[in-house]
Amino acid sequence: MPESPAAAHSACRFQSFSEPSDPSQVAPRIAALRKALAQQGLDGFVVPRADEHQGEYVPSHMARLAWLTGFTGSAGNAVVLADKAALIVDGRYTIQSAEQTDTRVVTPTRMEDTPLDRWIEENLPAGGKLGYDPWLHTVDGVARLEKAAVSAGGKLVAVKANPIDALWSDRPAPPSAPVKAHRAEFAGEDTASKLARIQEALAKAKVDALVVSDPHALAWTFNVRGGDVEHTPLPLGYAIVPREGRPTVFLAPEKVTNEAGDAIGAVGEIAPPAALEAQLAALGAAGAKVRLDSTTAASALATLIREAGGTPDAGADPIALMKARKNEAELRGARNAHLRDGAAMVRFLSWLAREATGGKLTEIDTVAALEAERAKTGLLKDVSFTTIAGAGPNAALPHYRVTEASNRKVEPGILLVDSGGQYEDGTTDITRTMAVGAPSDEMRDRYTRVLKGHIAISRAVFVKGTSGAQIDALARLSLWQAGLDFDHGTGHGVGSFLSVHEGPQRISKLGTTPLEPGMILSNEPGYYKQGEYGIRIENLIVVEERVIPGGDRTIYGFETITWCPYERALFELKLLDDGEIGWINAYHAQVWSNLAPLVEGDAKIWLEQACLPL
Amino acid sequence: MPESPAAAHSACRFQSFSEPSDPSQVAPRIAALRKALAQQGLDGFVVPRADEHQGEYVPSHMARLAWLTGFTGSAGNAVVLADKAALIVDGRYTIQSAEQTDTRVVTPTRMEDTPLDRWIEENLPAGGKLGYDPWLHTVDGVARLEKAAVSAGGKLVAVKANPIDALWSDRPAPPSAPVKAHRAEFAGEDTASKLARIQEALAKAKVDALVVSDPHALAWTFNVRGGDVEHTPLPLGYAIVPREGRPTVFLAPEKVTNEAGDAIGAVGEIAPPAALEAQLAALGAAGAKVRLDSTTAASALATLIREAGGTPDAGADPIALMKARKNEAELRGARNAHLRDGAAMVRFLSWLAREATGGKLTEIDTVAALEAERAKTGLLKDVSFTTIAGAGPNAALPHYRVTEASNRKVEPGILLVDSGGQYEDGTTDITRTMAVGAPSDEMRDRYTRVLKGHIAISRAVFVKGTSGAQIDALARLSLWQAGLDFDHGTGHGVGSFLSVHEGPQRISKLGTTPLEPGMILSNEPGYYKQGEYGIRIENLIVVEERVIPGGDRTIYGFETITWCPYERALFELKLLDDGEIGWINAYHAQVWSNLAPLVEGDAKIWLEQACLPL
Repeated sequence: MPESPAAAHSACRFQSFSEPSDPSQVAPRIAALRKALAQQGLDGFVVPRADEHQGEYVPSHMARLAWLTGFTGSAGNAVVLADKAALIVDGRYTIQSAEQTDTRVVTPTRMEDTPLDRWIEENLPAGGKLGYDPWLHTVDGVARLEKAAVSAGGKLVAVKANPIDALWSDRPAPPSAPVKAHRAEFAGEDTASKLARIQEALAKAKVDALVVSDPHALAWTFNVRGGDVEHTPLPLGYAIVPREGRPTVFLAPEKVTNEAGDAIGAVGEIAPPAALEAQLAALGAAGAKVRLDSTTAASALATLIREAGGTPDAGADPIALMKARKNEAELRGARNAHLRDGAAMVRFLSWLAREATGGKLTEIDTVAALEAERAKTGLLKDVSFTTIAGAGPNAALPHYRVTEASNRKVEPGILLVDSGGQYEDGTTDITRTMAVGAPSDEMRDRYTRVLKGHIAISRAVFVKGTSGAQIDALARLSLWQAGLDFDHGTGHGVGSFLSVHEGPQRISKLGTTPLEPGMILSNEPGYYKQGEYGIRIENLIVVEERVIPGGDRTIYGFETITWCPYERALFELKLLDDGEIGWINAYHAQVWSNLAPLVEGDAKIWLEQACLPL
Repeated sequence: MPESPAAAHSACRFQSFSEPSDPSQVAPRIAALRKALAQQGLDGFVVPRADEHQGEYVPSHMARLAWLTGFTGSAGNAVVLADKAALIVDGRYTIQSAEQTDTRVVTPTRMEDTPLDRWIEENLPAGGKLGYDPWLHTVDGVARLEKAAVSAGGKLVAVKANPIDALWSDRPAPPSAPVKAHRAEFAGEDTASKLARIQEALAKAKVDALVVSDPHALAWTFNVRGGDVEHTPLPLGYAIVPREGRPTVFLAPEKVTNEAGDAIGAVGEIAPPAALEAQLAALGAAGAKVRLDSTTAASALATLIREAGGTPDAGADPIALMKARKNEAELRGARNAHLRDGAAMVRFLSWLAREATGGKLTEIDTVAALEAERAKTGLLKDVSFTTIAGAGPNAALPHYRVTEASNRKVEPGILLVDSGGQYEDGTTDITRTMAVGAPSDEMRDRYTRVLKGHIAISRAVFVKGTSGAQIDALARLSLWQAGLDFDHGTGHGVGSFLSVHEGPQRISKLGTTPLEPGMILSNEPGYYKQGEYGIRIENLIVVEERVIPGGDRTIYGFETITWCPYERALFELKLLDDGEIGWINAYHAQVWSNLAPLVEGDAKIWLEQACLPL
């Protein structure tokens, strides 16, 4: 990312506060793309915000959507036709997309009103050829594009080379962060053992090989970590795991450290990324049935296999579920990381309690202070995502990211801080909502309802086989009773020194994967009052088995691993029942017992007050 | 159904207590079928327990599975190959299937161990031709059969005529119950208005016509009721509704009463069933896209349309959701039916309280007594399903049906009675579990946990868009906390003088349809201890909108429409919190207020005691 003009004042190593915006480049670039399309006989082209792995973070040399339209948000698609172009983004990016692009040549479009496929249906001219880069869309994604193009009376055409790349004169180089070994004490299972489990799954699924296209799965399987994208220690690359025999890992050899190379070399081969296509073609030529991860595998991979005579089999990557269930070493690491991270949060919150009332702090100041506290641990590798620090009305934006332009003063009302750290032993993610000055009755009512939902999830027990979709409502009942709700899931999976957003486990109405012991999830209900304030409370929790005397079913519950006091100035005690007050007191007693040895001075005094029983 | 030998003693008009079993016929019939298959060049044949409408109840002339194998359960499939035959049934029918068939020629097989498609995969010989009757399987069902046959190296072949029909010498005639008009005061919306809504939905779905293959949808749309199957007032037949213009209803004209005929004739045409194929062919010849209900439409319908040049479009029947949302007249009818039915339940329970301790009553006696109380209302058209009256260990079988062979004495312990009535103004379904003598502490604990789940559903409020899958867990939390659960859904949809099992609304982990105002559902958590006892508590509830001051979302909750006291001898008060006790007291006060005017004498005295506040 370009250096922020304010970076000097922020003291942040891992995040910036600028939103680059240069709409003047948009018109000439769109014009150049149109010319290139015409030369290739294409009537349009789809530009997704995506890399070849469908990653949450896209490395800068893959940021084609930003290059073309100026839009730097985390999701969106452009479609460029001969006479019009649309930038289709979801509601949270309505304002940003209009600011960043040149609206005279690109029309920002709300995805909720007109999704990508509908826009194509309504705008692609009959007989029109719509181009797409098959490395940037999944098989399912291509099927949707194709349906839309055909419905418009047109045709979808895969390009051999992305036409933007030939126009992009100052294109950054691909990332070249070193690929390092992930230490055994944190990984807890060696690659040979993981490969044996994967190969067993492939045999059960009756497929001949698996293409590992998700870099998270690559990192987990081979016990390596990289640094090719922001905030997640991913090595971008592929692997092919045959049902029997040694796998091949496709990573630029110059990126692979000796230690990581030795570890991979003990169980498989390392090949340059350019060798991937030949190996897929060889599998295809042998008539192999090859499993492709339906959520991350590029359509181009399926085509390579099919055209060589093989059978691509889009389905679940069996690694995803293995990775989601953390082993004892990973859980030990997560617990340690959370103690360290909790102490940093306590130091930050005690500082905030002293400074916030002065009226001088800004959101950026709080981000910087919190990152500094995490950095003091000496073990911080990165923040696990761009800190969300929202004061007042900015707290009502669940995905808010503070920029120099949006930066608000921390004034009486609400401050919401959602943040996390990447440590080698674990990834953290915590949200606390603080009162600045005296909160209103309504704020206390809403905070307490959110807290009740958060506690209901923490205390939930459920039979084996239960999915996140089945317990999500527990986080909402207290809000529903007041005619309120929040518009995001209650919880997402979290990786082990990997992505802070990990599937397939989740607590949301879309979370159909049964929850299994060892899965780490967030527990983060919220409430958002547009233009006024927002509330969210988040801990990480781990699914664990509970033995219940007299019971005859396998029952699971959650272990909470995040340690940090809640904001008692926002409690409305009359809304809390005895069980909830007992839970809060027990939690606070444990926070004190866990963190008191890790903080000192003012922070310790603040912590003791914050943890007093209700 | 054949008359039960004990029918005289039972005084039941609508249900029998025999389970016909004559395994001696099985071997010759299987042999005859094999001969017929060989003559047609087939190596096997699938015989589902299904009619042409995939109905829950199958008319006797469609009971081919029972004719062939002797098995009379409500679900199952036989596959007959040249050298072996399997009867594949779910776990609740393991014992019954072995008793009813000739296990020397037919092997009863547990569906949970070997589902139909797996059995075919493993047993159909390579090159084998497996026949099926395309009128008895849906499009999806045929796809599964085909996949299995192909996987076995064989082939699936549709037969022109079902080979069983030629062998079935004493086959009953098709049902010929009169089709009567459903009165406007109970229907609440005329057919013209319903057709306008259906045609609007067809236009929106961009289809040219709809085949109404679900007799429930037929009955609802044309405001008629029939009597072609047990316990549900269905006219078996079809309709075709074009996107514009008049529909055609396919019903044997001699069945249609003048009143019903006039009503249908006012908005459409009546044609004999034999005319259906020609009209589908005409639609196909016109190139029409025709919506088929994916849950009830026979594969044969899709083939007829496709072969004539049209496009079958398997999807949701838009009528299902319209029918599920009852209008004010239907809700008024349901409330009235439940008052009447609740009074019958109270008379029954007060009789039971007097008689049960004598040790002489049997399960069949209780079924007869309850049906008699319902019949006394003078308005009972049928029971809404075969009454489940389980004493002791029989109560642990959720789908138990008492027969002369299984009939137990009502002895100290538990008696579970799940029953309902069909009245012209509404369909009822209620379960109460009673203690006979002094219940054990464990029984009281379990009953109270089930009651807590039942109350949690009754009191639930939820935001618009919430599905039954999202609230199902509320009914289970108190059991999960004790390491327990139950293995059925919490609630099913209920029709309006139609089926007691109606979709798409349901409260279960499979219930993905959002709950909408006017939907009637059951609320029936349970607990089952195999070989000892079972508990279930069931009311019907209606989704209604709740206006919540200060809220900003559309919130729904449930109106309870079933009125009958719970069993206070089974309450464990220390497990109930103040809110739950308050809810029970308010419910009982309302039961008393609603039913006291409808009962007298001993029943009224019993009711008053049963409704005293806790």
